[in-house]
Amino acid sequence: MKHVRNVLIVGGVHGNELNGVYLVKTLEQQRSQLTRSHLSATTLLANPEAIRRNRRYVDTDLNRCFDPKDLTTANITLHEQQVAQQIYTQVQDRGVDFVVDLHTTTANMGLTLILSSDHPLNVAIAAYLATISPLVKILLLSPQSAIKRLRGLCPLGFTLEAGAIAQGTLDAHLFFESRRLIRETLDYWNRWNQGEVPPLPSETTVYEQVQTLDFPRDQNGEVIAMVHPDRHGQDYEAIVPGDPLFISFDGQVIPYNSHEVLYPIFIQESAYWEKGIAMYLTRKKQVPLEMA
Amino acid sequence: MKHVRNVLIVGGVHGNELNGVYLVKTLEQQRSQLTRSHLSATTLLANPEAIRRNRRYVDTDLNRCFDPKDLTTANITLHEQQVAQQIYTQVQDRGVDFVVDLHTTTANMGLTLILSSDHPLNVAIAAYLATISPLVKILLLSPQSAIKRLRGLCPLGFTLEAGAIAQGTLDAHLFFESRRLIRETLDYWNRWNQGEVPPLPSETTVYEQVQTLDFPRDQNGEVIAMVHPDRHGQDYEAIVPGDPLFISFDGQVIPYNSHEVLYPIFIQESAYWEKGIAMYLTRKKQVPLEMA
Repeated sequence: MKHVRNVLIVGGVHGNELNGVYLVKTLEQQRSQLTRSHLSATTLLANPEAIRRNRRYVDTDLNRCFDPKDLTTANITLHEQQVAQQIYTQVQDRGVDFVVDLHTTTANMGLTLILSSDHPLNVAIAAYLATISPLVKILLLSPQSAIKRLRGLCPLGFTLEAGAIAQGTLDAHLFFESRRLIRETLDYWNRWNQGEVPPLPSETTVYEQVQTLDFPRDQNGEVIAMVHPDRHGQDYEAIVPGDPLFISFDGQVIPYNSHEVLYPIFIQESAYWEKGIAMYLTRKKQVPLEMA
Repeated sequence: MKHVRNVLIVGGVHGNELNGVYLVKTLEQQRSQLTRSHLSATTLLANPEAIRRNRRYVDTDLNRCFDPKDLTTANITLHEQQVAQQIYTQVQDRGVDFVVDLHTTTANMGLTLILSSDHPLNVAIAAYLATISPLVKILLLSPQSAIKRLRGLCPLGFTLEAGAIAQGTLDAHLFFESRRLIRETLDYWNRWNQGEVPPLPSETTVYEQVQTLDFPRDQNGEVIAMVHPDRHGQDYEAIVPGDPLFISFDGQVIPYNSHEVLYPIFIQESAYWEKGIAMYLTRKKQVPLEMA
């Protein structure tokens, strides 16, 4: 049985996602909340310069700068590449066992746990947290995505996406709910380190990434349609073949034309505009829990 | 009776407020929508470089650069100051009678018309539009605010604030509702130019700015509280003395301590974080309509 003694709680990987920034700042003022009998947690404000500017990033998205081949090269030029190398060194030095990386999204995704990997310990704690709050959803993105992201620095851990929250704003309800999840995460590992396994359900629901969907565009690459109002804010609701998906600026409905019932998420995530992503499509799946 | 023959429709004063940008782009592709028998409208994408970068601005907020003393001086250095001078020249050259400046807000403000002035013609058309859509609210900010803003270039006109919409995203419902208001505005002035007055109510509701409220801060200027969940998204709902207003990061409720029932708006407007504004407080007022 692996012990989880060093938990790292990160905020501000994106400088304008304020809930994570202020969660970390307030935890730093109340360090007693970070210690348990059998573990301790440390915190990190990942990108102070972006936080100061209240912007997502200075030069480039920090959460795409953790590709292992970029973390040890001297040949870097961008602010966030430097920051990523510093964070990588700190994670190594601190001997981090588990990472909680706090983000917000403008999509209506409640408290989504994006797992660093499908390691049974990750699935188990996520399943446990899902029993605590109906806002918790468990998301498995492609393994490639973890390679470039901060959560990929540690095989155990998750990104917490809280939303819908506009960039540059705080949401008190999701702030307190996120803090509860952090507390429960530390309590969980503290029990685990003492040989207990908190009571788990026999199975849990996860959402697996199938693909990303761009907005419809014309031959010049110009966006020609918006997310249909019926889908707006409907993250994690099933989309059935034929359902309205987009609507063009002159009012023509563009239906969902796949053959499979899937579950859109990250619908209207603001930061994905520049990446050409209108939403992700995911598959809903029940997975049995392996008791460790 | 003043004629209104040249209407200017502006989008993209803030580059990441996409609904206005795409409203203007689509109107430019369908110019027949811009002409009537007795008037014509022109369009303007105000800050193309900010739009390209999908950012609010390049150097500084364009919608604070229209102070008359800055519009004719050669002594300017910032991108947006240059842009403001170019727009000023265009407004003069085109002989604009009425400005519609399209914005979005992350606050839940529906379709708020911020009038350029309390000129009876402005109040009348806004009152008319309010009869068309329950989402329409009429807002009178301080006269000083118009001086610095694009709408201040023309005594007749309004800013349309559509929300809640996250920056960098489109909202289809508010897109089509905004386009309807533009269409109705052109129809209204076209009838007016022919000597008709569209049927108006005897009075209308307006909201007058009383003050702005910052977030609670400590002695170092650091934010120590969030908007209380009870007020989140409750723009234009009365706040009564003693109501919860903010909540500190450790959960202490900070009540509204004024003696007057007021109406908060711009609650959690993302772009106002840097301006130290958590919300505006307004007074609700019935005003009789002067028939011109």
